[in-house]
Amino acid sequence: MFLSELLPISKAYSILESNQKILDTEIIDLKDSHLRSLAKEVYSFHNSPPFDKSAMDGYAVIAEDTFGASSNVIKELKVIDQIGAGSFSSKKIKNGEAIRIATGAPIPQGANAVLMEEYTITNNEGREDEFIEIHSQVTPGENIAITGEDIEKGDLVVGSETILRPQEIGLVASAGLATVEVYRKPKVKVIITGNELVDPTENLEKAQIINSNQYVIGSMVESCGAESEVSYAQDDFEEVKEVLINASKDCDLIITTGGTAISKGDVVVDAVKSVGEVFFHGVAIRPGKPVAFGKIGDTPIFMLSGYPVAAMGQFDALVRKFLFKMQNIEFNPRRERRKADVKIYSNLGRTDYIRTFADDEKARYVLNRGSGIIRSMVEANSYIIVDENQEGIAKGDIVEVVFFESMNWYG
Amino acid sequence: MFLSELLPISKAYSILESNQKILDTEIIDLKDSHLRSLAKEVYSFHNSPPFDKSAMDGYAVIAEDTFGASSNVIKELKVIDQIGAGSFSSKKIKNGEAIRIATGAPIPQGANAVLMEEYTITNNEGREDEFIEIHSQVTPGENIAITGEDIEKGDLVVGSETILRPQEIGLVASAGLATVEVYRKPKVKVIITGNELVDPTENLEKAQIINSNQYVIGSMVESCGAESEVSYAQDDFEEVKEVLINASKDCDLIITTGGTAISKGDVVVDAVKSVGEVFFHGVAIRPGKPVAFGKIGDTPIFMLSGYPVAAMGQFDALVRKFLFKMQNIEFNPRRERRKADVKIYSNLGRTDYIRTFADDEKARYVLNRGSGIIRSMVEANSYIIVDENQEGIAKGDIVEVVFFESMNWYG
Repeated sequence: MFLSELLPISKAYSILESNQKILDTEIIDLKDSHLRSLAKEVYSFHNSPPFDKSAMDGYAVIAEDTFGASSNVIKELKVIDQIGAGSFSSKKIKNGEAIRIATGAPIPQGANAVLMEEYTITNNEGREDEFIEIHSQVTPGENIAITGEDIEKGDLVVGSETILRPQEIGLVASAGLATVEVYRKPKVKVIITGNELVDPTENLEKAQIINSNQYVIGSMVESCGAESEVSYAQDDFEEVKEVLINASKDCDLIITTGGTAISKGDVVVDAVKSVGEVFFHGVAIRPGKPVAFGKIGDTPIFMLSGYPVAAMGQFDALVRKFLFKMQNIEFNPRRERRKADVKIYSNLGRTDYIRTFADDEKARYVLNRGSGIIRSMVEANSYIIVDENQEGIAKGDIVEVVFFESMNWYG
Repeated sequence: MFLSELLPISKAYSILESNQKILDTEIIDLKDSHLRSLAKEVYSFHNSPPFDKSAMDGYAVIAEDTFGASSNVIKELKVIDQIGAGSFSSKKIKNGEAIRIATGAPIPQGANAVLMEEYTITNNEGREDEFIEIHSQVTPGENIAITGEDIEKGDLVVGSETILRPQEIGLVASAGLATVEVYRKPKVKVIITGNELVDPTENLEKAQIINSNQYVIGSMVESCGAESEVSYAQDDFEEVKEVLINASKDCDLIITTGGTAISKGDVVVDAVKSVGEVFFHGVAIRPGKPVAFGKIGDTPIFMLSGYPVAAMGQFDALVRKFLFKMQNIEFNPRRERRKADVKIYSNLGRTDYIRTFADDEKARYVLNRGSGIIRSMVEANSYIIVDENQEGIAKGDIVEVVFFESMNWYG
């Protein structure tokens, strides 16, 4: 594959967009909705709070009765009732009166403020009724959460295309909904190919390679809010074909690893061509140019390299965006500007994903040589992405880095 | 609770530290290890790559044979064998010879470089043997991934106290391990108290409040790598006591909401005192001062407010760190400096968690009034934390913001 025969990444994105599938939706219990993608915007059935309520433990009062009170000027009020959380008082406050009130309880009639408990002392000495001495004044409205101040009835509270975090879930509940409509989680079949691959073992035969992609790609899929199931195939045309056909029948997306280069025994791309379509094969990215995308029936398929770091790079460059969008979420990782502490060679027309360790100031060098180097993915915390229109980067240039953790669904 | 009666947050942290529990460990399959906390460091059984291998599809050659080759100066080599992934060649290359080789295959004897397929043309015209024309030269070692360049046998590949991301999982697999020892996921019982609480509904009776904490706290627990189970209790001393005793028997941590203020009907703290110990009640934080911590038997218990935003603030300020550390991970969210676009009043001795929306430049105002305002948690993306030694912040001051997403286990 010469660079001139490779597809620029921008063109690859266009092809992916025209084959983008957005999944259907399902209605689930709010308690299961953490990190799901909301499909239908939520409007509130209620004002929140639904009534004027106390924001403090203390005494519901007429603010004007407290004016002038201080640690030197003590005033006194008669306590005529008390309201715990979940109950209310039918009494109405008149001048000189107060009602003890718990945080969250409804403000009784006649009161226009709440005086915090801390600024009062109970003093019933020699008296039948309860009295409090007050050491501070309040202004009208003080310590009252007014009806609808958080949410008004009919308000849009959470828009669609939102990943539900705890706070959105709380808002949906307060709006009066116990269920939400969300996009289905993509079911992804990961098919690992490669005769040379064996499960992790202490004893390796000659020419065997440990199959790490079975774990890596599966967990990357999970990090995009999707579910993964891993299966395997030898580098045999008929076997790969059969596994592909079966997979395409009961999943939303297929990802293969291995068999994408142009060499004998690399059968995956040919097998896909024989049972479906291949829209591109070879993208001008480094690492990871031998990557392909196609379709078997209605099921999209990404064909990634067998090399762990190439496969991870291809996943980051192409698959994440697609998997996010299947759940109707735009992939939008955090980009920050840093001073490059490395010199980077790059060809025009090729997009380079340079693994780097970015601290507060600089994007620093990490071992990058060869697409087999998993360690570089562990030591790095971000990518410097050298755009297809850039011809390399000099030490000291300002570059944009994309942090790994922000590329995750939950980031 | 006067400020002088409240515990500074630094003291609360000390008490939490002296009661910190780190969970025991378990051995799990690597395929289930995504986002688990590694308990035992991993050393490699292997060199990776385990042999000198080709980093490209092309031809294994003697580099010196290619010297001088270019698009104008074409040289020729005889192809004596081919090596697919997973196989090897027993032949030894001599001058003038090449072996076709797939990415990942072992370099044959005699070869010291790989020439990329792109720079060759097969030319067998009128000849029995296969020949290639070569249009480029390679230097010794080029396109060869040498034995152990990623990992050397015996190397520490992943240290303990690491949350396993896809890349660490790949490295563990390559090291030869199919299982890992990780800390158990904390089992957390969330107990929601409050007579006024009802499940989300379109129709609210007077004084009823929708129970949003049952969803919010459960999902916050999940966002700390732990598992949650939610149960409920009315504001009744005996009922709360019974639920607490049962919970303490089969979980690693209890979190309650409601019943922490000092008012009638707020029974949780008293119930904990009756069956266990309370180490603090009332912390100098805003929002969220009415928070308590104790123990029932060996089970630590956080008692949070019933108010959603207060409870969320208390969780962020106190519980996250504790839950992370139960899995032996330091809670270390991302702090960045921004110019404050708001003026903030704060008392000395109190730590304020001001919800803000921080963009690239500024920490901007979001609605903050009252601890009931869930919407502020949705509109904000970060906290400005005003330290107990700071007496407020002027507009234009440089402040540190802590981004919500970085407070999560997977962030």
